[in-house]
Amino acid sequence: MRKIATRGIPRLAFYYRTLLRFEENRQEIVSSAELGRKTGHTASQIRRDLASFGSFGIPGTGYRVKELRKKLGKILGKDKRWRVALVGVGNLGSALLAYNGFGPQGFCIVAAFDNDLRKIGKRREDIKVYDIHDLKEVVSLQNIEIAIIAVPSSNAQQVVGELVKSGVKAILNFAPIRISVPEEVEVENVDLSIELDRLSYFLEKREKKEG
Amino acid sequence: MRKIATRGIPRLAFYYRTLLRFEENRQEIVSSAELGRKTGHTASQIRRDLASFGSFGIPGTGYRVKELRKKLGKILGKDKRWRVALVGVGNLGSALLAYNGFGPQGFCIVAAFDNDLRKIGKRREDIKVYDIHDLKEVVSLQNIEIAIIAVPSSNAQQVVGELVKSGVKAILNFAPIRISVPEEVEVENVDLSIELDRLSYFLEKREKKEG
Repeated sequence: MRKIATRGIPRLAFYYRTLLRFEENRQEIVSSAELGRKTGHTASQIRRDLASFGSFGIPGTGYRVKELRKKLGKILGKDKRWRVALVGVGNLGSALLAYNGFGPQGFCIVAAFDNDLRKIGKRREDIKVYDIHDLKEVVSLQNIEIAIIAVPSSNAQQVVGELVKSGVKAILNFAPIRISVPEEVEVENVDLSIELDRLSYFLEKREKKEG
Repeated sequence: MRKIATRGIPRLAFYYRTLLRFEENRQEIVSSAELGRKTGHTASQIRRDLASFGSFGIPGTGYRVKELRKKLGKILGKDKRWRVALVGVGNLGSALLAYNGFGPQGFCIVAAFDNDLRKIGKRREDIKVYDIHDLKEVVSLQNIEIAIIAVPSSNAQQVVGELVKSGVKAILNFAPIRISVPEEVEVENVDLSIELDRLSYFLEKREKKEG
């Protein structure tokens, strides 16, 4: 199997989700053109991405939905459940605890952390909030592999340091600041405003056309 | 100027932000290789994307940072400030109101809406919370062009209907549900879990290597 460039992973993840919907609708075969329409990529991009995964294509027809979905799932690590910690139970952290889009994708938040004594020991959305000072112990006991950071920017780098020491290998960072980590730790930075850029581009383009 | 495929816009937005950092550090010229290292794209992808925008390249050297940043900003609609409404002042909505990453990118939340009488009329992060029933009036009075939806999935489609009637032309949807809109309205769906997929892919790959 050819190696996939890491920057192609979000595309594969999107194909995976789209295939899952086809599967739920009991569709057995999908063409690259149809997958393209649903995902916003060109059919040729899709064929290029999926060519790497062996022979799920039926020449002249399309792909077998279920087989392709399973294969992509395996590559994306979807065939297991990941144990996730959330650090920072403010507004954003609380929203993420309540967000029901993680579970179906295999991400299970099993513990939350904060430094606020009024929150520690309580439960939020049935998740226990631990003292941030117990991070290392809880991460180890609960076999946590991924952490989500939802703390203020000013605390983010310090929290990352604690997470790295506790053995977490992958971090999803919602703080609007670049954080530095050792090479063996993977970070994804979420910039909530970048999605707005496509909208402003769209509005700007239309104004020019109309004006 | 060549037409840019809409799916290339997030890349342009990312280049824009990276160039802005170079500019802040008073770097005048950047090569496509350097821009590639900072943005995770190949130098050839960057040259292809930027070839559309006229002659900001200095052959054999790179791009003029400031000129290129300004040009991209114009295309992305960054040379103006967009007036944004937030609908839904729950945990996620409150987090978005407090999020300090929108303003510097030209997105100014000027009004919030909710249906909870305890919230209506109050201020959150200095933004007034209006009754959702006054949506049309406030959108019109305040010249609001973009709306962010942070309501529960079950209410999302109804809110979209109200937004469309009020004249909003672009919607950023945080509810984990696909919403339908008339063709002239643009929607971006934010799936907070898709970023986690890259992390699980990374962990899965490493486990296979180690195991």
